[in-house]
Amino acid sequence: MAEIKNWSFWKAVLAEFVGMLLFIVFGLTAIIGQPTAGLSIISQEVKVSLAFALAIATLAQSLGHISGAHLNPAVTLGLLVSSQISFLRCICYILAQMLGAVTASAIVNSFVSGGSLGVNALSRVTAGQGVAIEFFGTLQLVLCVLAVTDKRRNDLQGSAPLAIGLSVGLGHLAAISLTGCGINPARSFGPAVIRKNMKNHWVYWVGPMCGGIAAALIYDFLQGSRVQNFRTRLNVLRNGAEEDDDAAVLATEDVRPGTSQWPKQ
Amino acid sequence: MAEIKNWSFWKAVLAEFVGMLLFIVFGLTAIIGQPTAGLSIISQEVKVSLAFALAIATLAQSLGHISGAHLNPAVTLGLLVSSQISFLRCICYILAQMLGAVTASAIVNSFVSGGSLGVNALSRVTAGQGVAIEFFGTLQLVLCVLAVTDKRRNDLQGSAPLAIGLSVGLGHLAAISLTGCGINPARSFGPAVIRKNMKNHWVYWVGPMCGGIAAALIYDFLQGSRVQNFRTRLNVLRNGAEEDDDAAVLATEDVRPGTSQWPKQ
Amino acid sequence: MAEIKNWSFWKAVLAEFVGMLLFIVFGLTAIIGQPTAGLSIISQEVKVSLAFALAIATLAQSLGHISGAHLNPAVTLGLLVSSQISFLRCICYILAQMLGAVTASAIVNSFVSGGSLGVNALSRVTAGQGVAIEFFGTLQLVLCVLAVTDKRRNDLQGSAPLAIGLSVGLGHLAAISLTGCGINPARSFGPAVIRKNMKNHWVYWVGPMCGGIAAALIYDFLQGSRVQNFRTRLNVLRNGAEEDDDAAVLATEDVRPGTSQWPKQ
Amino acid sequence: MAEIKNWSFWKAVLAEFVGMLLFIVFGLTAIIGQPTAGLSIISQEVKVSLAFALAIATLAQSLGHISGAHLNPAVTLGLLVSSQISFLRCICYILAQMLGAVTASAIVNSFVSGGSLGVNALSRVTAGQGVAIEFFGTLQLVLCVLAVTDKRRNDLQGSAPLAIGLSVGLGHLAAISLTGCGINPARSFGPAVIRKNMKNHWVYWVGPMCGGIAAALIYDFLQGSRVQNFRTRLNVLRNGAEEDDDAAVLATEDVRPGTSQWPKQ
Repeated sequence: MAEIKNWSFWKAVLAEFVGMLLFIVFGLTAIIGQPTAGLSIISQEVKVSLAFALAIATLAQSLGHISGAHLNPAVTLGLLVSSQISFLRCICYILAQMLGAVTASAIVNSFVSGGSLGVNALSRVTAGQGVAIEFFGTLQLVLCVLAVTDKRRNDLQGSAPLAIGLSVGLGHLAAISLTGCGINPARSFGPAVIRKNMKNHWVYWVGPMCGGIAAALIYDFLQGSRVQNFRTRLNVLRNGAEEDDDAAVLATEDVRPGTSQWPKQ
Repeated sequence: MAEIKNWSFWKAVLAEFVGMLLFIVFGLTAIIGQPTAGLSIISQEVKVSLAFALAIATLAQSLGHISGAHLNPAVTLGLLVSSQISFLRCICYILAQMLGAVTASAIVNSFVSGGSLGVNALSRVTAGQGVAIEFFGTLQLVLCVLAVTDKRRNDLQGSAPLAIGLSVGLGHLAAISLTGCGINPARSFGPAVIRKNMKNHWVYWVGPMCGGIAAALIYDFLQGSRVQNFRTRLNVLRNGAEEDDDAAVLATEDVRPGTSQWPKQ
Repeated sequence: MAEIKNWSFWKAVLAEFVGMLLFIVFGLTAIIGQPTAGLSIISQEVKVSLAFALAIATLAQSLGHISGAHLNPAVTLGLLVSSQISFLRCICYILAQMLGAVTASAIVNSFVSGGSLGVNALSRVTAGQGVAIEFFGTLQLVLCVLAVTDKRRNDLQGSAPLAIGLSVGLGHLAAISLTGCGINPARSFGPAVIRKNMKNHWVYWVGPMCGGIAAALIYDFLQGSRVQNFRTRLNVLRNGAEEDDDAAVLATEDVRPGTSQWPKQ
Repeated sequence: MAEIKNWSFWKAVLAEFVGMLLFIVFGLTAIIGQPTAGLSIISQEVKVSLAFALAIATLAQSLGHISGAHLNPAVTLGLLVSSQISFLRCICYILAQMLGAVTASAIVNSFVSGGSLGVNALSRVTAGQGVAIEFFGTLQLVLCVLAVTDKRRNDLQGSAPLAIGLSVGLGHLAAISLTGCGINPARSFGPAVIRKNMKNHWVYWVGPMCGGIAAALIYDFLQGSRVQNFRTRLNVLRNGAEEDDDAAVLATEDVRPGTSQWPKQ
């Protein structure tokens, strides 16, 4: 619980709130822009997909060095499962994200009353199919986040925030016609609260959260976990693994011979 | 006022003029391309958003090393508030931007008379709501500019001009249906002057300029200001903080123990 | 055949299966999203092109360091012709890709029955013209893969996965109206098996596979092959050219004076 | 004329031919995809703009290290004016580009007879206005090429081919409704020859070529020319300034004190 006395920890929580607020303001404003898409439904889908993609790309550029810019409870949970953040950070981030999303939904609701406000809803699919679609959409996103932020890699060039933003865009292009595309429980939560519309809302928590967990398990299986013994893992979950502590974490790692390691440059 | 005798300062002002001229030529030409969007209004919104995004991405690539390629009075003001440029540079850049935008609007007006020439107008929102939308749209843009050009960061890979261009695209995708999307007072000023249409024009100055100031305050709060005492700040506002002077600025910084600093590579 | 006892080899094959499964899930889900495009056929083409492009960009980011993320039998064949992988890896990857594509097609088929499920079909072109279109579409993709992964280059900045994803997007924007755009035999194979629709299916193997071979021959002619004598080539085809073995491969190269070589940085 | 005996020079000319052939195949195939855009004209414009943008981004990635991947006579002329290539290379590249474009147009013409084959034509503008639009569209493109390939800069991260591709996309989004968007005389030449339609064809040479020259003059004025005395300039125009000769060129440069120079990293 050392983080709780850390000023930069609370700045990071604030950054998650500010980032989520801006993310939802832009996403929902893009959605309410054209209230009746009609024949242009596909253009509207492309427009909204691009808006959510560019919102994450831009905000991850702007806030990534302050809080990591998760801006998504499923991403935060995936990083917890992969033992990269503490329990405390996980809970505080998710609360900040939910608060940011509700505030942003209230703001956008005041711009134009009426219209859908982007409340996620199932279209032509059952709740079970919706869970599966949200599961896959979030799985690829959290897999991408884990891969592009993996400090052991030295094969990456190019912008990590852009890569994550495009992954969000991919999820939307695939899922938007069928589930409206949550792949982010806080994003689904905001407008649902403001419009008091909780129909099938559980779908947008169960699918993405399971997707985030699955992504962490798959990535750590294929790539090998960053923390290689139980004691280190417990330590991270309790005290966090701050940028500054990286050296310490690596030092306590139980590096077995034969374990594949990236060459240090 | 040392800058006033500096040849590279006036080249930078000229670059802002040339850049703004080209920016507005491309943006407005994309807008006038299809005079009656009708059923395809959403496709037109996507097309215009992409045009403004790619225009900033391209021109920031081409002129960024000469003038910084602000190409937006709200960006210039944000950098002044963050004490990264001098008063003189701020004023000269904004004048050059306004002149460039008016010249470009006159050029595009000569291509095809009639049509809207991209004069920004409110649609389905009040002036107050318009100010809020322009405020948020500009806030994320200036936040992105401050973050990707922050020389203290060493976690950034990828193209800064592209990141800023995509941020402009995000603003347009969100705001274009409701305010036409200014998020750049000079861009709004050019066609308004040429078409002598000043209705609600103040909205496109108040919203973006406040957004730019707010972004600088938020970023400097979350990240810590680059200039850490009053004397340094005053010096930058008077004499500028040129690339070449960076060493000097850093030397006069009052680096307190415990202040979070990025490790030097 | 040394690779067959290698744990990381089988993890790579598994990564190809997982990657192909996710790739096809997202591509086909985007296609089935709007079952009757009608007047919006062009918007649908842009949406699907973006979905396939972002799917490859995202999955190559996420899995590239584990298996190379070929996710396409024509890419795998091109790399074999260019002597960069072993026969064993080529065969195992292609089988994993086909299995992944069939599994994914079955999953998406269960989301929404009816609709096309993205089975590739010729439109306004003959089978011969279809082969030519698929040939050119795959040629540029494999050329791009070979160029951005060429370790001898030191002029590249920016994201290789994004470059490859945009190359996939290019193929789709060009070919989608005429052949539906395969440029990836496994992608065409999956829905064809599930829907038992093998009409003109050979077109989507012959065109892309020839395109992949042609790309490897053109690139190695223009750029010079990585392996410069017959013995080295045979060794790679038998035992693979793993990251770790690169030093060895280079050591056995018969570097003739006058051969153009990139300067080492 | 030393280059004429150089094997890598002729490989570069061949690469320009192959690159131009592929560029035009993809661009024109995207155009002929939907012969009657009708109500979806704006979607068609976005699709074609993306296709040309991604084609240049992909081919510059794939062939940039072999020939520079100009793929555009206006780019080649701009580089000549900026004294970066020899006369011989300029002429051979332009001929290879024109031959590639004609061959590609013949190939695409064989896919689907009828339709426009992407012959550039003026729409709602006079020939003089068309020249101005083509001039500005090419000016920003050549400015971008000169800026992102300027080896004196050390502020650039991110992909140069992508930046150039997006610049091509910008030109199309702005100009496509009015001139069809040439900004590349060879691209306009190919389909005009195959369809024997030379109406206003001069517009697509005069506008872009003047744009390329203007871009070189503006960039060299704002940034300072790479070659700083007449003797060096003449030497480059005669013998070329190959990658390998860079050291020699720099050595003969007349570096005056006070000339702004980028610090060497």
